[in-house]
Amino acid sequence: MRTSIATVSLSGPLTEKLTAAARAGFDGVEIFENDLIGSPLAPEEIRERTADLGLSIDLYQPMRDIEAVPDDVFARNLRRAEHKFRLMRRLGVDTVLVCSSVSPQALDDDALAAEQLRRLADLAQEYGIRIAYEALAWGRHVSTYDHAWRIVETADHPALGVCLDSFHILARGSDPAGIADIPGEKIFFLQLADAPLMALDVLQWSRHYRCFPGQGDLDVAGLVRAAVRAGYRGPLSLEVFNDVFRQADAGRTAVDAQRSLALLQESAGLTAPPAPVVPTGFAFVEIATADTARITPLLSALGFSRTARHSGKPVDLWEQGEARILLNTDTDTGSHRPDPSLTAVGLENPDPAAASARAESLLAPVLPRRRAPRDAPLDAVAAPDGTEFFFCATGRPGHPGWTGDFAPAPHTPGGIGVTRIDHVALTQPWHQFDEAALFHRSVLGLRPHASIDLADPYGLLRSRAASNPEGTVRIALGVGASPTDDSARPQHVALATGDLVTSVRRARAAGARLLPVPANYYDDLAARHEFAPGELETYRELGILYDRDEKGEFRHCYTVTTGSLFFELVERTGGYDGYGAQNAPVRLAAQRT
Amino acid sequence: MRTSIATVSLSGPLTEKLTAAARAGFDGVEIFENDLIGSPLAPEEIRERTADLGLSIDLYQPMRDIEAVPDDVFARNLRRAEHKFRLMRRLGVDTVLVCSSVSPQALDDDALAAEQLRRLADLAQEYGIRIAYEALAWGRHVSTYDHAWRIVETADHPALGVCLDSFHILARGSDPAGIADIPGEKIFFLQLADAPLMALDVLQWSRHYRCFPGQGDLDVAGLVRAAVRAGYRGPLSLEVFNDVFRQADAGRTAVDAQRSLALLQESAGLTAPPAPVVPTGFAFVEIATADTARITPLLSALGFSRTARHSGKPVDLWEQGEARILLNTDTDTGSHRPDPSLTAVGLENPDPAAASARAESLLAPVLPRRRAPRDAPLDAVAAPDGTEFFFCATGRPGHPGWTGDFAPAPHTPGGIGVTRIDHVALTQPWHQFDEAALFHRSVLGLRPHASIDLADPYGLLRSRAASNPEGTVRIALGVGASPTDDSARPQHVALATGDLVTSVRRARAAGARLLPVPANYYDDLAARHEFAPGELETYRELGILYDRDEKGEFRHCYTVTTGSLFFELVERTGGYDGYGAQNAPVRLAAQRT
Repeated sequence: MRTSIATVSLSGPLTEKLTAAARAGFDGVEIFENDLIGSPLAPEEIRERTADLGLSIDLYQPMRDIEAVPDDVFARNLRRAEHKFRLMRRLGVDTVLVCSSVSPQALDDDALAAEQLRRLADLAQEYGIRIAYEALAWGRHVSTYDHAWRIVETADHPALGVCLDSFHILARGSDPAGIADIPGEKIFFLQLADAPLMALDVLQWSRHYRCFPGQGDLDVAGLVRAAVRAGYRGPLSLEVFNDVFRQADAGRTAVDAQRSLALLQESAGLTAPPAPVVPTGFAFVEIATADTARITPLLSALGFSRTARHSGKPVDLWEQGEARILLNTDTDTGSHRPDPSLTAVGLENPDPAAASARAESLLAPVLPRRRAPRDAPLDAVAAPDGTEFFFCATGRPGHPGWTGDFAPAPHTPGGIGVTRIDHVALTQPWHQFDEAALFHRSVLGLRPHASIDLADPYGLLRSRAASNPEGTVRIALGVGASPTDDSARPQHVALATGDLVTSVRRARAAGARLLPVPANYYDDLAARHEFAPGELETYRELGILYDRDEKGEFRHCYTVTTGSLFFELVERTGGYDGYGAQNAPVRLAAQRT
Repeated sequence: MRTSIATVSLSGPLTEKLTAAARAGFDGVEIFENDLIGSPLAPEEIRERTADLGLSIDLYQPMRDIEAVPDDVFARNLRRAEHKFRLMRRLGVDTVLVCSSVSPQALDDDALAAEQLRRLADLAQEYGIRIAYEALAWGRHVSTYDHAWRIVETADHPALGVCLDSFHILARGSDPAGIADIPGEKIFFLQLADAPLMALDVLQWSRHYRCFPGQGDLDVAGLVRAAVRAGYRGPLSLEVFNDVFRQADAGRTAVDAQRSLALLQESAGLTAPPAPVVPTGFAFVEIATADTARITPLLSALGFSRTARHSGKPVDLWEQGEARILLNTDTDTGSHRPDPSLTAVGLENPDPAAASARAESLLAPVLPRRRAPRDAPLDAVAAPDGTEFFFCATGRPGHPGWTGDFAPAPHTPGGIGVTRIDHVALTQPWHQFDEAALFHRSVLGLRPHASIDLADPYGLLRSRAASNPEGTVRIALGVGASPTDDSARPQHVALATGDLVTSVRRARAAGARLLPVPANYYDDLAARHEFAPGELETYRELGILYDRDEKGEFRHCYTVTTGSLFFELVERTGGYDGYGAQNAPVRLAAQRT
């Protein structure tokens, strides 16, 4: 279906919004009235600009507080509407959104509403314009889409139809199944937005917290299916009021928006892009540093050995069990980030080429195969935070093997018991948290978990993990309390061990510097749980944190931070599925000390 | 009464919180459990630190999900509690907050709750500890203070009383009059927080949007009066969960908190600090610039004349009607700000010395009288954003006259019809918006108006005006969409005229550069209002914006910005009481073009 986006969903002056929408591949836009009023361009110039950009103007919006009012008020409203119809003709747009009235002057009289909307449609028709009547969730007398449709049906005018808005319908808990009762040709427009579930006044919720489909909790795909089954053939248009998008770069937001519509159309069964290929494990993480000495003592103490060196590049492979770390001293790579920092993640994928095709279809920036000619051609994409994700098939015949580029280096096998990478935690730029969650879900095929708040001494952090169903790929996305925290975004790599106590003893003996845990933490643990004799004392001695859920136990500890990077050692037992969120404030306080 | 503050109300590590509370003059603190758990200091060291700082520890909090549970669960809860009692003894604190249970295991059984709380109190008494039982607004079975009191009354134990929290009581709309039924000695603790009225789930409201008394909409003073009448003699303690305070500097927040308690005690009739002295008008605004040529052409075009020069400093007085502008080229003054920028505001005050005494009693930084020996000794304070406010008595005998420091300069009387300063608009640092509103209310004696959102192309701005009852002193406080906007905070001075059209024609003729207003704005005005013949065309020709409210009309226009500063020309008729908020998005868009 055609795609469209309301200018209010993007930041900046109108011309920048139009350019961003066109570049992201939208077919059209809704012009939000205030964007036009604030623009120095005449309507004819806006019309020309959109045409030059290959965009249609699909809707002018909104017209408010028109219907079900006393005669003298309605006469003034008609006069006001005619002004706007003239403007729309100059703009070259043939559909206008009329919201159900919120005015205290509006009467609870459907017959009057229908009669006045018919008169409005009569006038609109003279200008070649169609009226799309929408029920605002907080409309004074009309607040549900079926009510709006009954009025439109009563008015029975060819230039009058309904506009369906997924937020207004789903936020009120209305059943979209009733859309089937509306003839498709009377659904003049479909506006789409998602939102996280919030116990919030619906008007505030609507004006500040809408997000793109797939970023929230509403079943927008179900609503789209219902509208298409009813015969709707207009554009899928995003109308998203969101305090973060208002500040974010319009170009990125527009791409994020297009990605959400691609996923939405797939979810609604309207398109069949290349299917997601869910990753099965971590192949490696890559760390960039100008000087390996900043990080190799820690890697060694954590039991890693340098097992190989890249044949054509200053890249070392460090291994322990199935955990692999690439150390890249190509200084270009890490120049804008703290040193060392995590720059890439390799994910084991059953079909790397198919995964790459899916990523491309979802507008993920596919990276040039920047490896040297004799390197294996690995497919990779850039996540919103700039982290590169490689699709790997380590050691599987018939696939390009990235390990073939490495020449073995002499080393003594050893280790502290690390078996694999448990999870990777990446702090996101403040404006891109929802975008990142959607990327990890749609492009990488991971399942997002609930978003939680973590108390840091200087503000609340938000964290949201995504994983594959088996829990063998886990990525925790975090975001700081405010945009000012963007400069040095912490990242960490959690390493799995089957016996944390032994691993920690060995790491300490090898000189690993672990994050000190306050004694008060253990006094509190003693109050909260009962432990086997000596168990708590061991944790206290070694600085191990402890959590349990209904399924199992979690023991973990952290190294100190170097650059923006630190490591975690974790032991999961009995199917524990979390990340020790209960202990995060203690860790964050210790990192601030 | 004694003052106290919960550590959770301040940002940073525990030791910084304690220092900030002590420096701001608090008598004691509530230790929030997570702050202790995250601290590397042992309980004994925390006890010592607070004592060294002259602080008492008034409360340990919180203990959760204790009461009204099956026997085996209660046995575990008692064990957990005893751990905490031991900790409290090490800490030297004798009162613990127990919140009403939110656990799904809790039973709706007041008799059981009372019996288990009695047993808890028995155990506490062995440790010399008192239990203060508080009804959480979202408690599973106990969510109102009178219900909590009934249970405490039933339990009838000397070591068991209630804790009253103004947020939990007022957010639910409970009537604090019932506090009179509780014997004062059974009110073990009083926690105070205010909050703006919000249609929001009460738990989210409580955890993110509490603020200090006087910064929100709750009648905290009424509740304090009720508690004091009931015989409560413990500390007034602030427990404020607020997403902004979590990020802000703890030292400033603590001072802001103390100011709010000072105002609260005055409002509750507990203290009588020097009474507020409401200002009656603007004496002057002071603009700092390294080079007067940056601003004098604009002042001249706006009809101002240089009427005098300071006898000892590089300060010029520019006048028109009752509007006075000081141009200060003392480069030290404005060195950290964009050039030119507004650095000081003189307010006409009936009793400058009394106003200064009040400011001092409310912890406003009273400025040294930094004028030269022969200068008039003007009293002045610094607002949270650094703007200096002078208390003036221009031309009134018996008061120091600041104009006496100026020697008249030859000039030709003229002007464009400006009569006085209408208002001053100051953008606040992001973390200090609520602090600023409280400052302007409590220290300057202005009445705050409702807070509104204004759409800027790059995010929503918040704006809140404060004025004297006559509307002759108006100050509009604004704040950007996010902390990143702090670098160049726009300020503007609005100048009143009785005939805006004439004033604008004269200003334009004299070369004033006014902000261009898009033609689309006037098309929209034509749709919204009917005008006399030619009226709208005049506005369009001159770039005048228009608004009306139920009382009157408002015409205004803006100059272009220089440094961070611009001017507005305004004409109010018929008692219009606003600031043209309807037109702000157009102005903001034009300023971004």
